[in-house]
Amino acid sequence: MDIKKIEHIGIAVKDLEASKKYYEEVLGLECYAVEEVADQKVKTAFFMVGETKIELLESTQPDGPIGKFIEKKGEGIHHLAFAVNNIEGQLAEAKEKGVRLIDETPRSGAEGLDIAFLHPKSTHGVLTELCEDKNK
Amino acid sequence: MDIKKIEHIGIAVKDLEASKKYYEEVLGLECYAVEEVADQKVKTAFFMVGETKIELLESTQPDGPIGKFIEKKGEGIHHLAFAVNNIEGQLAEAKEKGVRLIDETPRSGAEGLDIAFLHPKSTHGVLTELCEDKNK
Repeated sequence: MDIKKIEHIGIAVKDLEASKKYYEEVLGLECYAVEEVADQKVKTAFFMVGETKIELLESTQPDGPIGKFIEKKGEGIHHLAFAVNNIEGQLAEAKEKGVRLIDETPRSGAEGLDIAFLHPKSTHGVLTELCEDKNK
Repeated sequence: MDIKKIEHIGIAVKDLEASKKYYEEVLGLECYAVEEVADQKVKTAFFMVGETKIELLESTQPDGPIGKFIEKKGEGIHHLAFAVNNIEGQLAEAKEKGVRLIDETPRSGAEGLDIAFLHPKSTHGVLTELCEDKNK
C-alpha cells in the first residue's frame, strides 16, 4: 500500500458542542468546519493539526455506528484514516493480502473524499479508513 | 495550549512482531526503531507516516498499562500525542483550565522525549499525551 500521510483521526464524542469547546479552548485548536454526514448518521467537527485533521463525531441516531461504539466502549478514538492515491488499487492490494474490507468499493465521505474502511479484525484492532481526494 | 502537530498515535497490540509485519507488509510502512521502555512496561515499534509517528505498544508485563488496556478493551488505538514546546507551561495551562493531569511534571518517554499524560476523564475520552523534544 502507498500511504501519503495520516489524513485524520476520528474521535467518537457524546456531545459535539462540549467536545468542540474543549478542543478550542483547552487545546487551542481551530474548528474550520462542521458537517452532517447523513449516510453515517453523524455530525462532525474538523480541526487541523499540522498536516492531519481531528474529526470529532457525534451520533445523530442511537443506532448509528458512533452511537453503538460509544454504548460499547465509551467516548474515545474511533478510527485512523490514511490518505492514499488510487484507493481502488489499495483496496485490491489489501484484499489480496488477506485484509477483510468493510467497503469493497469506495463511497462518499465527509469533505467530498472517497473513502473505504478496513475491518479491525484484520488490522490488529484499529478501524482503518483509506481516503482519496479525487478533486485534487 | 500551543500544539505544533500530532507527534504520534499509540496503538496497543498483543503481539508486536505480528502487528509490525502487518504495518510493514500490508500498509507498506517502514519500522525505523524498536525500543523497550522499562518504566512503562512496554516494547515499542515506530513507523513514520508523513510528519506523524505510529507507535505500536506491546506490554512486557500483564500488569502494565498496555496489558490492562488490552484486557479491558482489546487491541486498538491507545493514546494520541501532541508535540508542544514548553511542556511545563502547557501542563500548567491545562490544569488551570480544569484538566486532570496524570503527570503533574514531565517524565522521560520513548525516543528521549519529555512527556506527560492528561487524564481521559477530562479530555472527552482520549488519553492525551504531550511531548517535547528538548534535544532539538
